Amino acid sequence: MLPADFISRLQAIVGRDNLFTDPVDCYAYAYDNSRKIFPPEAVAFALNTQQVRDVIQLCNQCAVPVTPRGRGTGTAGGSIPECGGLVLSLERMRNIILVDPANRLIVAEPGVLNQEIQEAAKQHGFFWPPDPSSSAYCSIGGNLATCAAGPHAVKYGVTRDHVLGLKAVTGNGEIIKTGCATTKGVVGYDLTRLIIGSEGTLAVITEATLKLTPLPQSVGGITAHYADITHCARAITAIMAQPHIPSALEFLDSAALDLIRGRHPGLLPENSRAMLMIEADGGTAEIADSAEAIRRACQNDGLITAEATADPAGLWAVRKALSPLLRDIAPKKINEDIVVPVSRLPELLQGLGELSRKYRVANVNFGHAGNGNIHVNLLINPDDPDEMRRGEACLDEVFDLVLKLGGTLSGEHGVGREKRAYVGREIDAQTMALMKQIKQVFDPNGILNPGKLFP
Amino acid sequence: MLPADFISRLQAIVGRDNLFTDPVDCYAYAYDNSRKIFPPEAVAFALNTQQVRDVIQLCNQCAVPVTPRGRGTGTAGGSIPECGGLVLSLERMRNIILVDPANRLIVAEPGVLNQEIQEAAKQHGFFWPPDPSSSAYCSIGGNLATCAAGPHAVKYGVTRDHVLGLKAVTGNGEIIKTGCATTKGVVGYDLTRLIIGSEGTLAVITEATLKLTPLPQSVGGITAHYADITHCARAITAIMAQPHIPSALEFLDSAALDLIRGRHPGLLPENSRAMLMIEADGGTAEIADSAEAIRRACQNDGLITAEATADPAGLWAVRKALSPLLRDIAPKKINEDIVVPVSRLPELLQGLGELSRKYRVANVNFGHAGNGNIHVNLLINPDDPDEMRRGEACLDEVFDLVLKLGGTLSGEHGVGREKRAYVGREIDAQTMALMKQIKQVFDPNGILNPGKLFP
Repeated sequence: MLPADFISRLQAIVGRDNLFTDPVDCYAYAYDNSRKIFPPEAVAFALNTQQVRDVIQLCNQCAVPVTPRGRGTGTAGGSIPECGGLVLSLERMRNIILVDPANRLIVAEPGVLNQEIQEAAKQHGFFWPPDPSSSAYCSIGGNLATCAAGPHAVKYGVTRDHVLGLKAVTGNGEIIKTGCATTKGVVGYDLTRLIIGSEGTLAVITEATLKLTPLPQSVGGITAHYADITHCARAITAIMAQPHIPSALEFLDSAALDLIRGRHPGLLPENSRAMLMIEADGGTAEIADSAEAIRRACQNDGLITAEATADPAGLWAVRKALSPLLRDIAPKKINEDIVVPVSRLPELLQGLGELSRKYRVANVNFGHAGNGNIHVNLLINPDDPDEMRRGEACLDEVFDLVLKLGGTLSGEHGVGREKRAYVGREIDAQTMALMKQIKQVFDPNGILNPGKLFP
Repeated sequence: MLPADFISRLQAIVGRDNLFTDPVDCYAYAYDNSRKIFPPEAVAFALNTQQVRDVIQLCNQCAVPVTPRGRGTGTAGGSIPECGGLVLSLERMRNIILVDPANRLIVAEPGVLNQEIQEAAKQHGFFWPPDPSSSAYCSIGGNLATCAAGPHAVKYGVTRDHVLGLKAVTGNGEIIKTGCATTKGVVGYDLTRLIIGSEGTLAVITEATLKLTPLPQSVGGITAHYADITHCARAITAIMAQPHIPSALEFLDSAALDLIRGRHPGLLPENSRAMLMIEADGGTAEIADSAEAIRRACQNDGLITAEATADPAGLWAVRKALSPLLRDIAPKKINEDIVVPVSRLPELLQGLGELSRKYRVANVNFGHAGNGNIHVNLLINPDDPDEMRRGEACLDEVFDLVLKLGGTLSGEHGVGREKRAYVGREIDAQTMALMKQIKQVFDPNGILNPGKLFP
């Protein structure tokens, strides 16, 4: 329950038009793409840094939990108001403050959509590399909070590699400025990257200086099909061992291909049991060189075909068709984004197959193979308690396998509430204790996105 | 004064062969490239993580300041034992633990030289991008502590962009592990980059997982000369506004050119008052495209000549000759490494000229212009008190100018002791207070590199 005068004080800060208290209105802010539901008691829409500060100070004074939220597209439950209280939505802070092509940067508020940043940058021949599949409707605030990535991370890196500085409000209600406007800068501690990926548990980002990258001159695509997953995994390793870094290297396993075949007959060769979608970008001559080197690396006994794609944009049609199909057949699937060193992918993919058989849980695996980042989808029916139990036991072993192979539990989705129970397997006790102390420094009263990220 | 049993306990940890207590031996650890001298009372050489932990725990128990040190090549005084006590040298931790080309990484101890990493990587077609001019004799531990960079940062980024994870011992004597072995990974807070650039004030790095980059196929060079600094600065802006990122873009002003002319007559055109050394790398066709685009961007009314360099390695001979010449003529020069957004370079360079005249202090400016990172050298004679005063007043205004132009006080050298008095101009009080609280979390007794980095 909120304290008596909380809502009136909140309204004094953000105004009546930027406040929801009706449970019907609040319900839309109860969930994200993890599909768990925890309704907040109120939703406030801040319009500027000062309002964010005032709201967080009020929440500190009233001991009200506050969950910052972008567009709620995360899959790990990081923006769910699990403890009730207030959702602080940044979606109305939508100004692009500065587009500065001469210095290759954009300064923007957190509610600006990833797509809008791309459009503003494109006019000047640039782009911002983080490209989650939700880019058309996710906000950069959320991209920063989760350190989002996407298929092009294999060449261009992840969010933390493309941010120069931040303005933010700590959990203690203090405005801080981190980083600088230039690509070099070593004055003080790197709070920029400490906040990036902290999933709104340390501070609320209210402004970001994003580093832009020149758009490649052109893009080429290769599609490769394999007779089995083992040979496909070997090809991934071979591609990543040679110097021409693909701009994307996406993988689909046989279950993913079968799903696509069901909806789009004739699109895929019948004997393909694993597929790679490979993109190379750069100048025309550079792409020709890369494509040749990559095609060479694709060769092995299991290769069915490796062909240049006439339309590189079409390359992604297959991949983008997949996620909605998965939702259709298993709306409550367990969706993970584990990572292993690329050379361990053959072992990982073999192990995932064995675990699927052992626990009788169908799985569909695809993802950003060039980074070793595989989206493992366990297709379970939550209304079947036995299948649920088997799914959870299977997941447990999947995580053990990943850590045994030197990997990490999450490449881009984050921990949120979905994976926190497993964090202690990856991060040792002393390092975790230090992280909790840092949380305490930023948010001494523990009001900012409480309960997230830590076990 | 060290407590009574400190040395014997220290010797029990590191062994007699890894300990200096004789002031004559200790003296070599009293200074770095900042040329300030503060002798330690002892020097211990740790051989592994456990010894580092035990030494730091001992220093905590005995309240002895401990200054971690790589090869002492820093210019900001970050590794000087200003408060006396112990120097903890990492120079004997020299193992390359793992070279893993399939996963594009090297795991190494902090005492490994930058050059040794490059040699280990080169055998597999890779390099590690941070390339400070001291690369032949600086250690990667120091590179990490300062977030070092160098000329190739304009294309490849700085140290923080090329590290996957760390093992480290906090100021509290606890072993932590940060990051992971893969390029994607978002589990927990980014302690890796918090420690990188923290100049040994938070933790002592004992192992680093370095991300490797494929060596470019080939390298091309362009040398451009200008009739005045203003036109040269405009060319820098134009080069960085077009999409072909040079792999290096170095600038020398007329004072720097005159110095070189004095030692190497005939090397440079007589009418050149500013010079750019530009490097492009990649495939042969890519370099040709880049060189053409860069040469176009070089064109303006002040251009004397822009020519391809037959020998790209020779391109650097001019630049590398400069630092020793500067030391010869002004051994106690004030050496800064300010940064401004590239588009503000014309104003910066004009302002530096005005300040030189105003304070009658000769200056020599050169550096990594593509990042807006200029090494400003004020040539002062420390035995002339009036010139010293003018030099310091001039520096004061240089920093004001840099911040007015949206820049930062240090691009790669760090704060150490040399710049700490100015940090408060760049970092606001609230952000600084937060940084100090983070320091407190890592190093509650304040024994680790005390006094550094903060005003």
